[in-house]
Amino acid sequence: MVRVSLGANKYGKAENRVVRIVRDTPRHEIVDLSVSSQLRSAALADSYLTGDNSKVVATDTQKNTVFAFAKAHGIPSPEEFLLTLSRHFTTEFDWIDGGLWQAEQYEWERILVDGQPHDHSFVRSGRGTRLASVQVEGGATHVTGGVKDLVVLKSTGSEFAGFPRDRYTTLVETDDRIMATSVTGRWRFLPDAVEAGIDYNGLYAEVTAVLLSTFATVHSLALQQTLFAMGAAAIEARPEIAEVRFAMPNKHHFVYDLSPFGLENPNEVFFAADRPYGLIEGTVVREGVDAAPDAWLDLPTFV
Amino acid sequence: MVRVSLGANKYGKAENRVVRIVRDTPRHEIVDLSVSSQLRSAALADSYLTGDNSKVVATDTQKNTVFAFAKAHGIPSPEEFLLTLSRHFTTEFDWIDGGLWQAEQYEWERILVDGQPHDHSFVRSGRGTRLASVQVEGGATHVTGGVKDLVVLKSTGSEFAGFPRDRYTTLVETDDRIMATSVTGRWRFLPDAVEAGIDYNGLYAEVTAVLLSTFATVHSLALQQTLFAMGAAAIEARPEIAEVRFAMPNKHHFVYDLSPFGLENPNEVFFAADRPYGLIEGTVVREGVDAAPDAWLDLPTFV
Amino acid sequence: MVRVSLGANKYGKAENRVVRIVRDTPRHEIVDLSVSSQLRSAALADSYLTGDNSKVVATDTQKNTVFAFAKAHGIPSPEEFLLTLSRHFTTEFDWIDGGLWQAEQYEWERILVDGQPHDHSFVRSGRGTRLASVQVEGGATHVTGGVKDLVVLKSTGSEFAGFPRDRYTTLVETDDRIMATSVTGRWRFLPDAVEAGIDYNGLYAEVTAVLLSTFATVHSLALQQTLFAMGAAAIEARPEIAEVRFAMPNKHHFVYDLSPFGLENPNEVFFAADRPYGLIEGTVVREGVDAAPDAWLDLPTFV
Amino acid sequence: MVRVSLGANKYGKAENRVVRIVRDTPRHEIVDLSVSSQLRSAALADSYLTGDNSKVVATDTQKNTVFAFAKAHGIPSPEEFLLTLSRHFTTEFDWIDGGLWQAEQYEWERILVDGQPHDHSFVRSGRGTRLASVQVEGGATHVTGGVKDLVVLKSTGSEFAGFPRDRYTTLVETDDRIMATSVTGRWRFLPDAVEAGIDYNGLYAEVTAVLLSTFATVHSLALQQTLFAMGAAAIEARPEIAEVRFAMPNKHHFVYDLSPFGLENPNEVFFAADRPYGLIEGTVVREGVDAAPDAWLDLPTFV
Repeated sequence: MVRVSLGANKYGKAENRVVRIVRDTPRHEIVDLSVSSQLRSAALADSYLTGDNSKVVATDTQKNTVFAFAKAHGIPSPEEFLLTLSRHFTTEFDWIDGGLWQAEQYEWERILVDGQPHDHSFVRSGRGTRLASVQVEGGATHVTGGVKDLVVLKSTGSEFAGFPRDRYTTLVETDDRIMATSVTGRWRFLPDAVEAGIDYNGLYAEVTAVLLSTFATVHSLALQQTLFAMGAAAIEARPEIAEVRFAMPNKHHFVYDLSPFGLENPNEVFFAADRPYGLIEGTVVREGVDAAPDAWLDLPTFV
Repeated sequence: MVRVSLGANKYGKAENRVVRIVRDTPRHEIVDLSVSSQLRSAALADSYLTGDNSKVVATDTQKNTVFAFAKAHGIPSPEEFLLTLSRHFTTEFDWIDGGLWQAEQYEWERILVDGQPHDHSFVRSGRGTRLASVQVEGGATHVTGGVKDLVVLKSTGSEFAGFPRDRYTTLVETDDRIMATSVTGRWRFLPDAVEAGIDYNGLYAEVTAVLLSTFATVHSLALQQTLFAMGAAAIEARPEIAEVRFAMPNKHHFVYDLSPFGLENPNEVFFAADRPYGLIEGTVVREGVDAAPDAWLDLPTFV
Repeated sequence: MVRVSLGANKYGKAENRVVRIVRDTPRHEIVDLSVSSQLRSAALADSYLTGDNSKVVATDTQKNTVFAFAKAHGIPSPEEFLLTLSRHFTTEFDWIDGGLWQAEQYEWERILVDGQPHDHSFVRSGRGTRLASVQVEGGATHVTGGVKDLVVLKSTGSEFAGFPRDRYTTLVETDDRIMATSVTGRWRFLPDAVEAGIDYNGLYAEVTAVLLSTFATVHSLALQQTLFAMGAAAIEARPEIAEVRFAMPNKHHFVYDLSPFGLENPNEVFFAADRPYGLIEGTVVREGVDAAPDAWLDLPTFV
Repeated sequence: MVRVSLGANKYGKAENRVVRIVRDTPRHEIVDLSVSSQLRSAALADSYLTGDNSKVVATDTQKNTVFAFAKAHGIPSPEEFLLTLSRHFTTEFDWIDGGLWQAEQYEWERILVDGQPHDHSFVRSGRGTRLASVQVEGGATHVTGGVKDLVVLKSTGSEFAGFPRDRYTTLVETDDRIMATSVTGRWRFLPDAVEAGIDYNGLYAEVTAVLLSTFATVHSLALQQTLFAMGAAAIEARPEIAEVRFAMPNKHHFVYDLSPFGLENPNEVFFAADRPYGLIEGTVVREGVDAAPDAWLDLPTFV
């Protein structure tokens, strides 16, 4: 009989879609989240080994807690909501000593009626989806914010040249191309800043604005260079940020060959390809901060 | 041997993703379309019956034409671009007497840098996707504009009551609920207006604004009522529109039962469900206009 | 004030995911459906015009009925289940005189344990998804069966040549290519056969087998030709079928150009492209049967 | 000025969809892969910091190499193909000392014609998608195989009871429920076994069969218990496997409440919910093997 043992594990309820309306005044507020909660504990091993569920906080209970807390504590920001959940589960159940809580937030804007924002009617806007995570591991709590699906394009101001050539290299150098990507980024907050309290919503607005303006203004020699500049700008903008991780697909826009039809195509007509795509991933770190690999445990690759 | 014959058919190239940059000045413009082209002709029967391709304008040729025309003719609006394509195929090839051309348009906004819109850097925005179609059938040309995935929500101002009850009815009447939907709508243009020329881009902006403000301001007794009011407002706003078709899923937001936890939930915490969903479809028609069923031939259901 | 009226409409509950287990013996049976129910009636106009819901059978009631009927009547086949639903709604509510009921069925196979099919454990298999629809319109009832996402490929035995060439034609003729498609097809049953009763499950198995073997054995000069042959074979195989509609994307597999690397590529290495794709749609009709355009009303394009 | 530095990074070309036909005899073979290649090197830092691309093996070159190698070396198995790619990039370019190569493989079965498997016509089958990865990091090479989207269900033989109850717990204990999940699993191969050579295709077939039969036969007290038993069985079956990681969503099937309609529902009619879902993740480790955290670096969470 081969002997086996239990390695890394966690469990919980994923993608609880909770919509919280604040309606204390006629001008309603809306917060729209998908929340995932997962717990870790050495005491959970028996559920895997023998089906003993005496320490298994039911995933259904985790779901109920998410919705109950949306009422009892409100959702000032996804980061704070996840922190509240993490504290609850690790104190209510004394054997739960770790976990990962994640959220996506969907943005709604007020509908304009006669030029005025409406009190209780909203339209989904789509400049990316906000991300947040809280990780409890090894006695420490780590918080990240982030964004995904922030799709950007510049129609000039991007080059790619000077790369090595081997027998499988056919790519032509270019000093003018479209550069387009869908930014996924996560920024890890410094523990001291989390402790002191952060204006997470204001920070999100500022960081995403900085990411966009940096993408726009950097004359790009490589998507790698743009990625690094965007991370550096975010860290520059906000002292609460320890590091930023990015995954940026290079969404290729190929100049369509119109020469068979007697037409020139000086970067005017492009074919936007789906697959394959470049995939550039990188981390920008504020010098002098401690590394925190646990913060990234089990978060979606690369960010 | 059973005898069979060929019925309705068409063929072409779908989802040509063409990005057109206008770069005559440093302030670039971008138009981003997915274009589908399909042709019809009695002369194509032999390709089905015997594999005789002598009348089959290759789908690859249709693709080349889309990209070449993006250069040669530009893309003033998706509707005008499709009209140009439709005229080309039905004149260049004398046996082609019908077809369906469709486009989706993806919206880009200029990135703000120091508060100013950037010349050549853009971010995808997401208030729905613009639609257009041109149908040539039976000697007539029909044009539609439209929008899909325009997601809206009102947190009050919506009721649902007075419906019939049978043995399978358990739904409780409500005088206050969240109403949310993802609007897909197509408006058919009056042939005379197409002939005279339409400011399709201006019309799209105005119609989508009217749809939003109508959704916001109508106190809703049923999603059906809201749908009709939105169509009527669009027709009211623009004399070029003959009729509007809508498909509106009722994206259910259920009040989460917090009573087991000793919490009240006066419409503050909702669970947003995925499936099943209500699906309301309807057409609003300007009185006195001729019906044009061919215009809707083979367009995605319901719109 | 512009005058408007209500045109075509219907409403209901979409994508009710019902799983029915037959467990009368230790050898369980499973039927897994997504069912959509939509109703039509002139009496529903007031719900659109004034929000009067007195004739609106709630979509929630339609959902409850789907699940209740899965128990009360079982699901012998998706076609028969939809027929039962259609009869219920059009008799229980005397103002409901039309509607569209649709189903997708997901296939499960028994897991093999020591070579034997297990009594109550199943694995999803994926040779396409079964389709069914029942349409009630104008006093008549129309039934279709079908399949979608049946992905097939032949690595030789496919040509494409002899097509016309214009100034936008660059495609090279080929006498050997990969042909691949994802078949979506719907077959309409003859009303007399529906009346007499059909072994819908046996027919589905036979028709999909015939579609596959015909795809395999026809030497193809065009995807159009293969489509027609597949439809003719289905009609040949089963006298209950009046006509078959197909939508077949031409999933392009391009020979990768390896010549820059000093390698030949005699149809051995292909790049499978996503978009754009050819899209071939056609109908094969048994000669002598009456056309039934209402049967296809509001079904997804093209089938 | 804030000082920043570059942290973890990699780059490459993702989702190269390569189809390889072996056509040395009339009986063709097909291998259908999506391959991703990403490289790591300290020498790449300048591309991020200054846009110096002199060490950036173009992602386009990586793509060309994938397709060229499909011809030059064939694809005996995804694991061996990725190993060949990894050796090439880390030797051809002396500064490339790490990387991650991943593949998905799509399964095709021969179409039956008159009961015989056809020589060159295939249908996609769908019992999950095969996974493989090769990681080069810190001088070591790690290989994993795996599967995703293997959807299984048992209609009885599953309980869930004995879990702790707090104020947010409403879940009722059950001794008979549907258990359904979509298995994603990755097994890491022992380095010695990789060195000695493995029949990767035979192993994949055996492991997936063992996973299925174990799922079927274990009477489940918790999905955690089933997960562990499946991993243990895989390790038992094949000595080449060091450990197995699983992510298993608990695809909830809720008994539909038919009591309002006067119907009993003894586990016969279920509503299959989409979200939220339980998410159980765990690792099963062969005792005595060295841990290899690098093997899992940047692989999609949790497996």
